[in-house]
Amino acid sequence: MPRYFAEMMYDGTRYKGWQVQPGQVTVQGAIEQKLAQLFQQEVPIVGSGRTDTGVHARQQYFHFDTPSPVDHATLCFKLNTMLPADIALRQLIPVSDEAHARFDATKRAYVYQVSPVKDAFLDRYAWQFRKPLSIERMNEAAQSLAGRQDFKSFSKVKTEVNHFECTIFQAGWERKNNLIVFNVSANRFLRGMVRALVGTLVEVGINRLSVSDFKAIIKQQDRRSAGVSAPPQGLFLTEVQYPATLLSASTAL
Amino acid sequence: MPRYFAEMMYDGTRYKGWQVQPGQVTVQGAIEQKLAQLFQQEVPIVGSGRTDTGVHARQQYFHFDTPSPVDHATLCFKLNTMLPADIALRQLIPVSDEAHARFDATKRAYVYQVSPVKDAFLDRYAWQFRKPLSIERMNEAAQSLAGRQDFKSFSKVKTEVNHFECTIFQAGWERKNNLIVFNVSANRFLRGMVRALVGTLVEVGINRLSVSDFKAIIKQQDRRSAGVSAPPQGLFLTEVQYPATLLSASTAL
Repeated sequence: MPRYFAEMMYDGTRYKGWQVQPGQVTVQGAIEQKLAQLFQQEVPIVGSGRTDTGVHARQQYFHFDTPSPVDHATLCFKLNTMLPADIALRQLIPVSDEAHARFDATKRAYVYQVSPVKDAFLDRYAWQFRKPLSIERMNEAAQSLAGRQDFKSFSKVKTEVNHFECTIFQAGWERKNNLIVFNVSANRFLRGMVRALVGTLVEVGINRLSVSDFKAIIKQQDRRSAGVSAPPQGLFLTEVQYPATLLSASTAL
Repeated sequence: MPRYFAEMMYDGTRYKGWQVQPGQVTVQGAIEQKLAQLFQQEVPIVGSGRTDTGVHARQQYFHFDTPSPVDHATLCFKLNTMLPADIALRQLIPVSDEAHARFDATKRAYVYQVSPVKDAFLDRYAWQFRKPLSIERMNEAAQSLAGRQDFKSFSKVKTEVNHFECTIFQAGWERKNNLIVFNVSANRFLRGMVRALVGTLVEVGINRLSVSDFKAIIKQQDRRSAGVSAPPQGLFLTEVQYPATLLSASTAL
């Protein structure tokens, strides 16, 4: 059973998130449905991670094993034709049988978009937030996120993880075109973590929390101490990284 | 009756174009409906021009006369709150009673987006066109568009204009991110003109027409000689210009 990594993207607006749920339209479900049609049998896929209802991905990976040998360029083209317009494959990459889209990922990056004004094209892609935000204050607070720490304060309570430690590589805000954008990357993220971080940092940005309040919230390791979650439509998974050997060496198979 | 210019934008996906049509959802209709609610009487608006079904505007202007004096910043805020998410006002500008959004516009600019690959976020904003396009050939053809010429070959047959002459200031293709983009500006555009230009230039880009074929098509002044129209969702009205005195001097009123 040859294994492939799929590099892909999706507009999450219409979906109840990534993960299959009975009776719901999900990204994983939509893909598995088309694979089952093509192969006339169930072909489960494993994503690099999950995203919530309404969250988007500019780059996402999943792996799967084809029941029979295939020409993967042809399979990629066919699957793209069958998938809805808001899910697009970029490429299928042959990998070794042990390669794992979730466990082998070494870095994930997210972008969160805030729009200070009404924009006819951004209702589904940004959080419209009218109050003036201090990027300087938000960045001062965001600095304290870097490094390996327990982020339980920013995790949903219902979660299956064994521990809440994540290593944040980079976290910061910038103005980009007419938007205010939060960029964050880490080895892993907890459930709801980016939206909880954004929601809490925005409270720093409007002066409802101080920078030292924010630092204290991290230390408290209690979700109730952090702010409310920012809405899902502003969030994009933008990058998933794997060891170079995993993706490049294997294409020679 | 004080007159205002409104600077605004819209995502045209849901609309049967700009112009009011009985029984259809149009951008003009949606705005006039909210103005009527606010003023408890009909308030007609005049756009800088019309766009077709599914065509977008990043910058569009219209003018209207308020039945009574208003605070225009408040009116702009209220109207934005009432309008759907895919129509957004940027500002209302007080102008003189003779200022006219259509007749006073000196320049319009459009962008047309072509995507060579499936993109989950561009189904409503680009023409997905898989065949390789020669930007060099398309640009060589586009050069012959500049200047004052009769563009009847690129106009819909059903139209109300007296003549087909337009002065094209600039027309050219470029790669931008993952897109192939056509930029064109002129003093005026005929009905369906940009989409007919794009459809015909793309035939040059795939070598179905030569550059001299394209030049001959302009000269023929016959819509049947040009190519088919490019689909509407790739087209954006991006800029409308007025004499500086019209918009700036009048804000002092």
